[in-house]
Amino acid sequence: MEPLAERVLQGDVRATARLLRCIDDRNGPWRRALADLHPHTGRAWVLGITGNPGAGKSTLTDQLVTYYRRAGLRVGVIAVDPSSPFTGGAILGDRIRMQRHALDAEVFIRSMATRGELGGLSRSTADAVRVLDAWGAAMVIVETVGVGQDELEIARLAHTTAVVMAPGMGDEVQAIKAGILEIADVFVVNKADRDGADATVRDLEMMIALGHEILHSGAHSVGHRGARLDLAEARHRAAANEWLTPIVKTVASRGEGVAQVAEAVAKHRAWLASTDAGAERQVLRARDELTVVFREALMADAMARVGASFDVATARVRDRAQDPYEAAAALLEQYRGS
Amino acid sequence: MEPLAERVLQGDVRATARLLRCIDDRNGPWRRALADLHPHTGRAWVLGITGNPGAGKSTLTDQLVTYYRRAGLRVGVIAVDPSSPFTGGAILGDRIRMQRHALDAEVFIRSMATRGELGGLSRSTADAVRVLDAWGAAMVIVETVGVGQDELEIARLAHTTAVVMAPGMGDEVQAIKAGILEIADVFVVNKADRDGADATVRDLEMMIALGHEILHSGAHSVGHRGARLDLAEARHRAAANEWLTPIVKTVASRGEGVAQVAEAVAKHRAWLASTDAGAERQVLRARDELTVVFREALMADAMARVGASFDVATARVRDRAQDPYEAAAALLEQYRGS
Repeated sequence: MEPLAERVLQGDVRATARLLRCIDDRNGPWRRALADLHPHTGRAWVLGITGNPGAGKSTLTDQLVTYYRRAGLRVGVIAVDPSSPFTGGAILGDRIRMQRHALDAEVFIRSMATRGELGGLSRSTADAVRVLDAWGAAMVIVETVGVGQDELEIARLAHTTAVVMAPGMGDEVQAIKAGILEIADVFVVNKADRDGADATVRDLEMMIALGHEILHSGAHSVGHRGARLDLAEARHRAAANEWLTPIVKTVASRGEGVAQVAEAVAKHRAWLASTDAGAERQVLRARDELTVVFREALMADAMARVGASFDVATARVRDRAQDPYEAAAALLEQYRGS
Repeated sequence: MEPLAERVLQGDVRATARLLRCIDDRNGPWRRALADLHPHTGRAWVLGITGNPGAGKSTLTDQLVTYYRRAGLRVGVIAVDPSSPFTGGAILGDRIRMQRHALDAEVFIRSMATRGELGGLSRSTADAVRVLDAWGAAMVIVETVGVGQDELEIARLAHTTAVVMAPGMGDEVQAIKAGILEIADVFVVNKADRDGADATVRDLEMMIALGHEILHSGAHSVGHRGARLDLAEARHRAAANEWLTPIVKTVASRGEGVAQVAEAVAKHRAWLASTDAGAERQVLRARDELTVVFREALMADAMARVGASFDVATARVRDRAQDPYEAAAALLEQYRGS
């Protein structure tokens, strides 16, 4: 076994940090180490925390870390949210508000930077989840902003996804991407001491009721492609013992409602275990992970093989001599023949 | 020429709507029509409007449509923002607030739904921009939420990108993804009658100053991959006549500052025309468009050829018999040999 992988399995924090850097840089023994770790993964529960900027995701994450630590669990945090204090300091200097877990050797916090390539972020996040799983985290919390395709793909890495919103930020329920309904396993109305919290809860209840109808009628046009279709179907097939997305009110800044969020997550976990939905979700997760990595491998191989032809094709598209579809078809043919 | 394409070129609104539906559904003469239209594109100016939910992007878009219509221009709007009233009605019923342009035959408004596949949204948006360009729009406004990889990719379709924010929504400047700095050509501080507007302007000024330093030192880790690297370099090379991102204060709900936004856009357009940056941006746009379409074509071809092996590989990943990289490498080999 790769020595770095071995040290990760022994719970070594510094080795874990080093491996994550290697993975990001595609450097050193990253490939071998990931392969060695893979059989030792699958024990962590992955909790996605998503929602718009300002909803209080980071504060809730912070409180959940405290909660799970009190329960004696080792916890990993992956902050993909660009507005998170975990990641947001990149340009404006040190803004890390959440340093109270920094000295706890049983908590590993990882910020994911934006990658230039589409899909790069979900691939890195999936890798980081696997590493923290192997490191021994019983719970891995992945914090993302609930908008954007990439973020939805990341959210699908989670076993349980909590969607966080706060009243008084505009049309918050309306502002939720339709696709969110399909990935939300738990709704959290944070800042519940604010005016409008009950209205937000009512809006959500309506949306959940409507959403169930829509999901099961298959009538709406959103998300009915790719993996989310199957997620909807998976839920439909589990109808005999259906999961009704709970709504939990919190004031995360004071720790209120945090235990109830953890409880809802535990219930969801138990529900997944008791139905076919859990097994189906494992397949979907594996398929998503494989899709991301395969797409990347494919594109890298193709770009290397078509070489400078890509720039020639780009010039043709720019000059309007060819449209992108014609140019792409020609490149594909060249790649197939290479 | 494809008759549908011909009617689009004549400015036929219904034909344009029909073609856009065909493209979405991959149905009818979409391929042929797009190819026929391609030589007739390149006249529209593409203005990206991006920013967090609640910043007032849709209100500003609405006001800009009014502004450009008064100037006699034909205008296209593509709303990719899931929180936009243009698109947000999908689940909660008719929420379209902006119907005052609905009867204007010189305004075409198109909402983009979320696609299941990664990259699908940017591909559809690029196609829609091309169609509205061919239809005769002098200005195409693309409204997106400023978070997420896909949205950044869409933002790169624009010739000029305006990033909108509003004071009093939390750490708004901090909440901006670092990558946004590199795509912002104009900053708009909307709801400028609110407390904190001046502080937001000051924060932005600081960020712009810092950002210039960072971009030009090449020292930070964000966005220094793929096309955005080149965008930074393009700006660097244009240093002799450098674009200094202006900050415009608006109260879009009352129409205040809207003319100033349009003026900043016009200045940016003139600047692009007067430097190498404009030509380089054309190359970057063409390359982005081609990348999206090529990646999709490649993946579709590969998935068709590996067929059921993908599901077998998925099962192996799920059972932890293989990690995603090994499985992807095996699939790539199979595809290459097919």
